[in-house]
Amino acid sequence: MSRPILILNGPNLNMLGAREPEIYGRETLADIESRCRDRAAALNVEIAFRQTNSEAELIGWIQEAPASAAGVILNAGAYTHSSIAILDALQAVDLPVIELHLSNIYRREPFRHRSYVSPAADGIICGFGAFGYLLAIEAMVERTESGESG
Amino acid sequence: MSRPILILNGPNLNMLGAREPEIYGRETLADIESRCRDRAAALNVEIAFRQTNSEAELIGWIQEAPASAAGVILNAGAYTHSSIAILDALQAVDLPVIELHLSNIYRREPFRHRSYVSPAADGIICGFGAFGYLLAIEAMVERTESGESG
Amino acid sequence: MSRPILILNGPNLNMLGAREPEIYGRETLADIESRCRDRAAALNVEIAFRQTNSEAELIGWIQEAPASAAGVILNAGAYTHSSIAILDALQAVDLPVIELHLSNIYRREPFRHRSYVSPAADGIICGFGAFGYLLAIEAMVERTESGESG
Amino acid sequence: MSRPILILNGPNLNMLGAREPEIYGRETLADIESRCRDRAAALNVEIAFRQTNSEAELIGWIQEAPASAAGVILNAGAYTHSSIAILDALQAVDLPVIELHLSNIYRREPFRHRSYVSPAADGIICGFGAFGYLLAIEAMVERTESGESG
Amino acid sequence: MSRPILILNGPNLNMLGAREPEIYGRETLADIESRCRDRAAALNVEIAFRQTNSEAELIGWIQEAPASAAGVILNAGAYTHSSIAILDALQAVDLPVIELHLSNIYRREPFRHRSYVSPAADGIICGFGAFGYLLAIEAMVERTESGESG
Amino acid sequence: MSRPILILNGPNLNMLGAREPEIYGRETLADIESRCRDRAAALNVEIAFRQTNSEAELIGWIQEAPASAAGVILNAGAYTHSSIAILDALQAVDLPVIELHLSNIYRREPFRHRSYVSPAADGIICGFGAFGYLLAIEAMVERTESGESG
Amino acid sequence: MSRPILILNGPNLNMLGAREPEIYGRETLADIESRCRDRAAALNVEIAFRQTNSEAELIGWIQEAPASAAGVILNAGAYTHSSIAILDALQAVDLPVIELHLSNIYRREPFRHRSYVSPAADGIICGFGAFGYLLAIEAMVERTESGESG
Amino acid sequence: MSRPILILNGPNLNMLGAREPEIYGRETLADIESRCRDRAAALNVEIAFRQTNSEAELIGWIQEAPASAAGVILNAGAYTHSSIAILDALQAVDLPVIELHLSNIYRREPFRHRSYVSPAADGIICGFGAFGYLLAIEAMVERTESGESG
Amino acid sequence: MSRPILILNGPNLNMLGAREPEIYGRETLADIESRCRDRAAALNVEIAFRQTNSEAELIGWIQEAPASAAGVILNAGAYTHSSIAILDALQAVDLPVIELHLSNIYRREPFRHRSYVSPAADGIICGFGAFGYLLAIEAMVERTESGESG
Amino acid sequence: MSRPILILNGPNLNMLGAREPEIYGRETLADIESRCRDRAAALNVEIAFRQTNSEAELIGWIQEAPASAAGVILNAGAYTHSSIAILDALQAVDLPVIELHLSNIYRREPFRHRSYVSPAADGIICGFGAFGYLLAIEAMVERTESGESG
Amino acid sequence: MSRPILILNGPNLNMLGAREPEIYGRETLADIESRCRDRAAALNVEIAFRQTNSEAELIGWIQEAPASAAGVILNAGAYTHSSIAILDALQAVDLPVIELHLSNIYRREPFRHRSYVSPAADGIICGFGAFGYLLAIEAMVERTESGESG
Amino acid sequence: MSRPILILNGPNLNMLGAREPEIYGRETLADIESRCRDRAAALNVEIAFRQTNSEAELIGWIQEAPASAAGVILNAGAYTHSSIAILDALQAVDLPVIELHLSNIYRREPFRHRSYVSPAADGIICGFGAFGYLLAIEAMVERTESGESG
Repeated sequence: MSRPILILNGPNLNMLGAREPEIYGRETLADIESRCRDRAAALNVEIAFRQTNSEAELIGWIQEAPASAAGVILNAGAYTHSSIAILDALQAVDLPVIELHLSNIYRREPFRHRSYVSPAADGIICGFGAFGYLLAIEAMVERTESGESG
Repeated sequence: MSRPILILNGPNLNMLGAREPEIYGRETLADIESRCRDRAAALNVEIAFRQTNSEAELIGWIQEAPASAAGVILNAGAYTHSSIAILDALQAVDLPVIELHLSNIYRREPFRHRSYVSPAADGIICGFGAFGYLLAIEAMVERTESGESG
Repeated sequence: MSRPILILNGPNLNMLGAREPEIYGRETLADIESRCRDRAAALNVEIAFRQTNSEAELIGWIQEAPASAAGVILNAGAYTHSSIAILDALQAVDLPVIELHLSNIYRREPFRHRSYVSPAADGIICGFGAFGYLLAIEAMVERTESGESG
Repeated sequence: MSRPILILNGPNLNMLGAREPEIYGRETLADIESRCRDRAAALNVEIAFRQTNSEAELIGWIQEAPASAAGVILNAGAYTHSSIAILDALQAVDLPVIELHLSNIYRREPFRHRSYVSPAADGIICGFGAFGYLLAIEAMVERTESGESG
Repeated sequence: MSRPILILNGPNLNMLGAREPEIYGRETLADIESRCRDRAAALNVEIAFRQTNSEAELIGWIQEAPASAAGVILNAGAYTHSSIAILDALQAVDLPVIELHLSNIYRREPFRHRSYVSPAADGIICGFGAFGYLLAIEAMVERTESGESG
Repeated sequence: MSRPILILNGPNLNMLGAREPEIYGRETLADIESRCRDRAAALNVEIAFRQTNSEAELIGWIQEAPASAAGVILNAGAYTHSSIAILDALQAVDLPVIELHLSNIYRREPFRHRSYVSPAADGIICGFGAFGYLLAIEAMVERTESGESG
Repeated sequence: MSRPILILNGPNLNMLGAREPEIYGRETLADIESRCRDRAAALNVEIAFRQTNSEAELIGWIQEAPASAAGVILNAGAYTHSSIAILDALQAVDLPVIELHLSNIYRREPFRHRSYVSPAADGIICGFGAFGYLLAIEAMVERTESGESG
Repeated sequence: MSRPILILNGPNLNMLGAREPEIYGRETLADIESRCRDRAAALNVEIAFRQTNSEAELIGWIQEAPASAAGVILNAGAYTHSSIAILDALQAVDLPVIELHLSNIYRREPFRHRSYVSPAADGIICGFGAFGYLLAIEAMVERTESGESG
Repeated sequence: MSRPILILNGPNLNMLGAREPEIYGRETLADIESRCRDRAAALNVEIAFRQTNSEAELIGWIQEAPASAAGVILNAGAYTHSSIAILDALQAVDLPVIELHLSNIYRREPFRHRSYVSPAADGIICGFGAFGYLLAIEAMVERTESGESG
Repeated sequence: MSRPILILNGPNLNMLGAREPEIYGRETLADIESRCRDRAAALNVEIAFRQTNSEAELIGWIQEAPASAAGVILNAGAYTHSSIAILDALQAVDLPVIELHLSNIYRREPFRHRSYVSPAADGIICGFGAFGYLLAIEAMVERTESGESG
Repeated sequence: MSRPILILNGPNLNMLGAREPEIYGRETLADIESRCRDRAAALNVEIAFRQTNSEAELIGWIQEAPASAAGVILNAGAYTHSSIAILDALQAVDLPVIELHLSNIYRREPFRHRSYVSPAADGIICGFGAFGYLLAIEAMVERTESGESG
Repeated sequence: MSRPILILNGPNLNMLGAREPEIYGRETLADIESRCRDRAAALNVEIAFRQTNSEAELIGWIQEAPASAAGVILNAGAYTHSSIAILDALQAVDLPVIELHLSNIYRREPFRHRSYVSPAADGIICGFGAFGYLLAIEAMVERTESGESG
C-alpha cells in the first residue's frame, strides 16, 4: 500500500479532551493522531491525519482523496447526521471508506441515530473511543491489501 | 438585459463527469459552462458561471446578486435538501430564481425529495441533465424580458 | 421526428384563464395550445394537444401513445398527486415523458408536493406558467433527437 | 334567486336504500330528491338534482355550475376523501358551496376523516341523513339571499 | 317536545362580535341568542342558551341535561379539540347531540381539525356562522320529533 | 351455480404482455381470459370477464353484480390503492368478493401495500401471475357452493 | 399511618352507574366510596374521598395533599390523557401516588392510551372496576407502612 | 376455587435481585414466589409459579392453562412489548388474565409503553414491585369468586 | 415432483377449532392436515405437515427445507408480523415459498397488516380459511412443475 | 403608560419554591411578585400580578385585559402546551402579549416543546428563571412606549 | 465582568434592513450593534459583535469563546434549525449561552420550530426584534454577575 | 485475562456461506470460528464460540456469561432488530459487550436500522464481514485489559 490512509475528522473534534470528557474521553486529537501514527508504523503504512470544522473543506479533502490516498477513515462529527453533501462526495470517489465515531451514537439523542455517511461506508466502527481509530486503520489495511473496495 | 444571469452550482458539481455518471451524465462542469455560454451568446445575454462546495460562499453569491445580476439559476446540489440558510438568502434578494437539478430528484432517495430552494424559486427544472441549464437560461431570458420577478 | 409530440392536459385545465388567475395566469388553454403550435412549427415538429377531466381517458391516451407519438408531455393536473393508475400507464409505455406544471407545486399545499408522475418522468418543469409548455417542447425535441428515452 | 341550486351526488349514492342501511338509512336517492323538491318548492327555489359514479362527470358539472346555478350542494361520497381534482374544480368556480354527508364521517374509518371538499366549502353538514339535504337547501337559500359567497 | 333544547357555548364565545370578526362574524352572542329564540318560537319549542369559559361547567351542564332538556346543541369552542372529558360527558347522557361551529374548522389550523365532540354527535354543522344555530335548532326539532336519538 | 362469476380487471390490465413483463409476465389479458374460460368449463361454471380503465365503470359493474353474478373476482389494478369509492361499492353488494393481484404487491413500492379492496374481500390471492385467476375461480366455486358469503 | 389516604376522582366519575355501564359497571361512586371506607376500616386507616369535574380543583387538592394526606390515589378520568397541569401538580408534591382506572384503558380508543399521570405515579392499577379502589388502598397502606415514597 | 392460579414469568425475570436493582428491586424471583405462596395460603388458594426465557414455552403454558388453572397472572417481561403470538395465545383461552409488571413501564423507554398483553388482559397492575404479585393474586381470587371472566 | 411440499404452521395454530372460531373457523389443524393429504394425493404429490410454537424451530425447518422439500407453504401465525429472523431464513433458502393465512389479516388490527414473510414469498393466499391450504398446494404444484422458483 | 401591565401566572406556579427547585428555582411566587413590583417602580409603571390554577379564570382575565391593562405577560404553566382556548382568548384581544417560562422548555419532555401561546405572542422569554419576569416587564414597557402592538 | 460578552450572528443577518423587513424590521445589523454598544456601556460591560455566513466560522468563534469572553449571545439564524455541529460546539464550552431570534420563530414555517441551539442555551429570547439584543445583554450581565453558568 | 471471550451468534448465522453470499460473503461460520481462534491465540486469549436460532438460548447464554466470560461479542442477527428481551439480558449483566454485524445494516431495509442491542453495547462494528470478528476480539482484549467495562 504505497499511498497513505486519509483520516479525516470533522467539526469540534479539535476540542477533544476539553469537550464533554464523560462522552468523548480525555485524550486530545493530537494524542489520537500520535497513537494512529504508531499503529500505522507498526503496520507499515502511512497516514494523513486532518481536522476541520468546515463542511466544504471536508468535501474538498474527500474529492481529492482518490489522487493521493488508499482509503478514507472518516469521523465526520456532527456532519454525519446532517450532510448530504458529504454523502455525495463519498459516493463520487472510488475508494474504501470507513465510518468512525468515538461514542456509541445509538445511545445518544435520536437525531444522532441517522447517519448520512453510512450508505457510502464499507464498514462502521463506533463506541470504542480513541481505540476505534486503531481498529479502523487495521481494517483499512486489511481491506486495501485484500484488494476490495467500497 | 444588461446584467448577466448568475448560474450558481453547489457542492460536488465540480466532480461532474467523474461522479456517478449513470446518475449525472458524462459531461464535466466545464463542458456545461461552455454549452451555457454558447446558448447565452445565441440569446444575446451574458452569464456568470460559478461553483463552490461552501454553503457560506453560495449564500454570499446570492446576497450579492441583486447588485450585479439579472437573475439566479441555482443548482444547489445536496444543499438543496438541507440548507434553510440558502432559502433565507434567496428570500432576501428581489430577483428571479430558477431551481435546477441534473437528475430527477424525485426518483432518488426520499431525503432528496425535500427542497428548501423550491419555496423561493419561480420555476423548477430537473431531470434533463446538462440540457436543463440551457432550458433555464431560456426561461430566465423570457422571464426577465417579460418584466416578471419572483 | 416524424411522429407528433403528445401534449396531455388533465382535469380543470380547460378552466384556465377563468380559474384562480393569481395561481395559473390569465391565458386560456387555447392560448397555450396556439403558442405551442407556433413553437412546434418553429422547431419543425408536430404536436397533438388534448385535455380531459377523465382519469380513464388520460390513461387511454397514454396507452395509445407508443403507436402514434414521439413522446408525452403531461400536465396531469390534480391527478398528479393521486393517480397511481396514470403512473402505471406511463411505466407501461416506452416513450420519453416530461412532467409539466403551470404553478410551482412545492409552494402550495403539502398534498400537492407528492407526484405519482415523477417516478415515470424523464424530466420535470414547473412554475413557468404557459412558457413551461414551450420549454417542454424544446426539451422533448432535444431528447428525441438525441435518441435518449426514459 | 332565479337560477336553481345544483345538488350533486357522487359515487354509490345511487345505491341508497340498498347499501348498508345501518349507516345510510333506508330512503332511496329518489326519495331524497323528492323531499328536496318539496322543500325547494316551499322555499320558492328550484333545484337540479344529479348523481354520477364518475369523478370526471362531477368535475364537469361543477365547472358548468356558474353558468346555470346559484350554488352547489355537494355530497361527493367517497371522492370527498381522495379527489384533489374536485377540490380544484370547486376552487375554480365562484359560487357558494355546501359540503354534505349522510353519515357522521368522523365516527367512521380514519381515511374518511380527511375531506378535500372542506377547504372549498362555505359550510358543512353531516350526520343528519336525508334531512341534511333539506338543511343544506335552507342554508343555501339564506346564503344566496344574503348575498354572501364563499 | 315539552322540554327545551339546551344550546351550550364554550370558551371565548362570549367575545363574539369583538373577537376576530373576519373569522367569526360581527354578531354578538346575545344577537345569536335572540335569533335562536325567534326561530324556536316559530318552531314552537323552547331553548335554554348558555355560555361558559369553564370546561367543568360545560361538563356539569351536559350531565344535567337528561333531566331537563330534549337535546343538546354544543358549540364547544376550543374545547372541541382538546377535551376528552366533554366527550365522556356526552357519551354518558342519552340525548340527541348536535355539534356546531361558526367557522369552517377544516379551513383553519390543523389542530382545529380534530374534534373530540364528533364521535358523540348525531350530526355536525359548521361554517354557516350564526345561521348554523338556526339550522341546528331545526335539525334538533326534526330529530326529537321523529323519535330518533344518537 | 347458475349465475356466472364476474371477473373484473381495472386500469392498465389491458396492457398485459406489453407492460413491464418482468413484473406482470408475458401473457396478454386475452390469454388469461382464455385460461379462465377453460378452467371455468372444467369446473362447470360460467364467467364474465371484463376490463376497464374507468373507476366509474368498475363501480357500475360492481353495483350491478348482485343482479347477475354469483360472485366477484376483482383485480382492481392501481385503483386498489386509491379508490375508496370501489370499497364502498363492494360493501354495498352482498356477494362473495375475491381480491386478486398478478404481482406480490408487498414486494413493491410502499404505496402499493395499502389496499382499499381488502376490507371488503373474503379472500386475497396475489403474486401467482395469471395462475392466480384460476385459483380465484376455484376458490369462488368452493365458496359459493358451500353457501358462505362475505 | 395517622393521616388519611386521599382518593381523588376526576370528571364524569360522578356519573358512575348511569354512564355506559358496559364499560364502567353499575356501581355508583357512592357505592365505591362505601366499599373503600369498609376496606379502609378493615386496614385501620382513614380515607378522604372526593370527586370533581374541575381540573383546577383537582390540582388544588393535589397541591394541598402533603399537608393532610399520607398518599394520593388518583382516578383522573379523562384528564389522565390531556392534563399536563395535573402531572405538574403531582410532581410538585412529595407523596406516594397511585394511578387508578376502572376500565382497561389500553383496550379503548388510542387517545386513552397516553397517560400524563403515569410518569408521576408509583404504581398503576386498571381494569378491575370498583375492586381496583380496594387494591389501591391496600397498596398504599403497604407502601406508606414500608416507608417508601415515589 | 379448586384449580390453582397460574403465575407465569417471562424472560430475564430469573435474574431478579441481580439485574438492575434500582429498577426491579433486590428480591429474587424465589423470594417473590415465597411471598406469593404465603398470600395464596392466606387466601386459601393454590398457585403454580413458573419462569421461562422462551416465548414458545410461555405460549405453551398459556394454551394448557384452561385445563388446569383458574386464571393466569402474566408478567411477560420484554415479550410484553413484542409478542403478538402471546396475545394470540391469551385470546385463545377463556380464562381471566391479569397483566403484571414490577416497574412502571410508562416511566421507561417508549418501546416499553406498548403492551401486546393489555388487549387480552382483564386488569393491569404495574409499578408496585414484588407487592404487585400479591395484589394480582387478591384480584384474581376476587374475580374468579365473583364468577366473572375476561 | 419427487420431494414433498413442506407445510409449516406457526404459533397457536395447534389451537385451531378451539381458538376464536368466529375468526379462524371450527376445523382443527388435524382436520386441515387431513384435507391437505387428500388434495396432495389427488395431485400425486407428497406433503410434510408440521406445527410449532417456537420461532427457532420454524427457522430450523426452513433452513433444512432445501435438502428435503420441493417448496414451503408457510402459515407463520403471529410470527408473520414480528419475525425478521424467519424472513432471513426464507431468503437464505432457494425454494418456492407461499405465504398463507386463514383469516383476512387486512381486516384485523393494524399490527397484523405488516408481514415480514411477504418480501420472501412468491405468492400470498389469505382469508379462505382451511380451503386456502388446498389452493396453496395446487399453486405450489403448478409452480414447481412449471420450473419457476422464487 | 397609564394602565398597568397584567402579569398572569397559570397552574402550579403558586407552588414555586416548594416544587422541583432544581427546575424552577427556590424563589416563591411572592418573591417574584415583589421583584416585579420593584422593577416596575423603577420603570415608573404599574403591574397587576395574579395566579390561578383555573384555565377558565385565565381566559376570563385575558378577555378583560383590554379594558384595564396595557399588555399581558403570560406564564401559562402547563396550559401553554394544551390550551387552545387560551390561544383563542389571546387572539381575541388587541394587546401586546409576552410569553414567559421560568425553565427552558426545549430542554424538557417533548410534550413541553409545543406552545399554543406562541402564535399569539409578540415575544417569548424562557429559561431565565425569576429574572425573566423583569426582562418581560422591560420589554413590555419598550413595546408599549414605542406604540407597537402584536 | 472583565471579559466581553460575545454576540454572534449567523447567516443572512448581514442583510438586515434589506431582507424581508415585514419579518425582520428595518434596522441594519450595524444599527443593532450600535444599540448594543450603548446598552453595554450603560451596563459597564464590553461586547464583541460579529457576523458570518459560515457555519465553520461560527463554530470556531464558539470554540474560542472560553478564552476571551464572559458569555455567548447567539443568533444563529437559519443554522439554528439545522446545525448539530453548532450544538456540539456550544456543549463543548463552559460558558453561559443565550439564544436569540429577531422574529417569533414559532409563528413561522414548521421547520423553523426546531432549534438545535436550545438544548445548549441557558435562556431564549425571541420575537422582540432588535430590542431582544438589549434584553439578552441585560440577562447575560445578570447571569454572569450572579455567578451562575449554564 | 483468564476467562474466555464469549462470541455469540444468533439466528441464521449457521447458514453463512450458503445464504445470500452477495450480502454475507462466502465464508462459513466454521471458517469464521477458525479465524477467531487463530487471532485469539495470537493475542493469548481464549474464546467460546456459539450459535443458536433460539432467542431464549441466546438470553440464557448472556445471563450465564458473568460467571464464565470476560466479555460478550454478540452478532444477534435478526434478533438485533426485534428482541427487547436480549437488550434486557445484556443490561442485566455487568460485562463489556460488543455488537457485531457482518453487513452494513444501515445500507439495508429500514427495519434493520433499529438495533435493540446498541443501547447495551460498549462499541459497535459492522460491515467488515468476517474480519469484523477479529476486530471485535482485538477491541475486547483492549477493553478488558484496560480495565474498563460497559
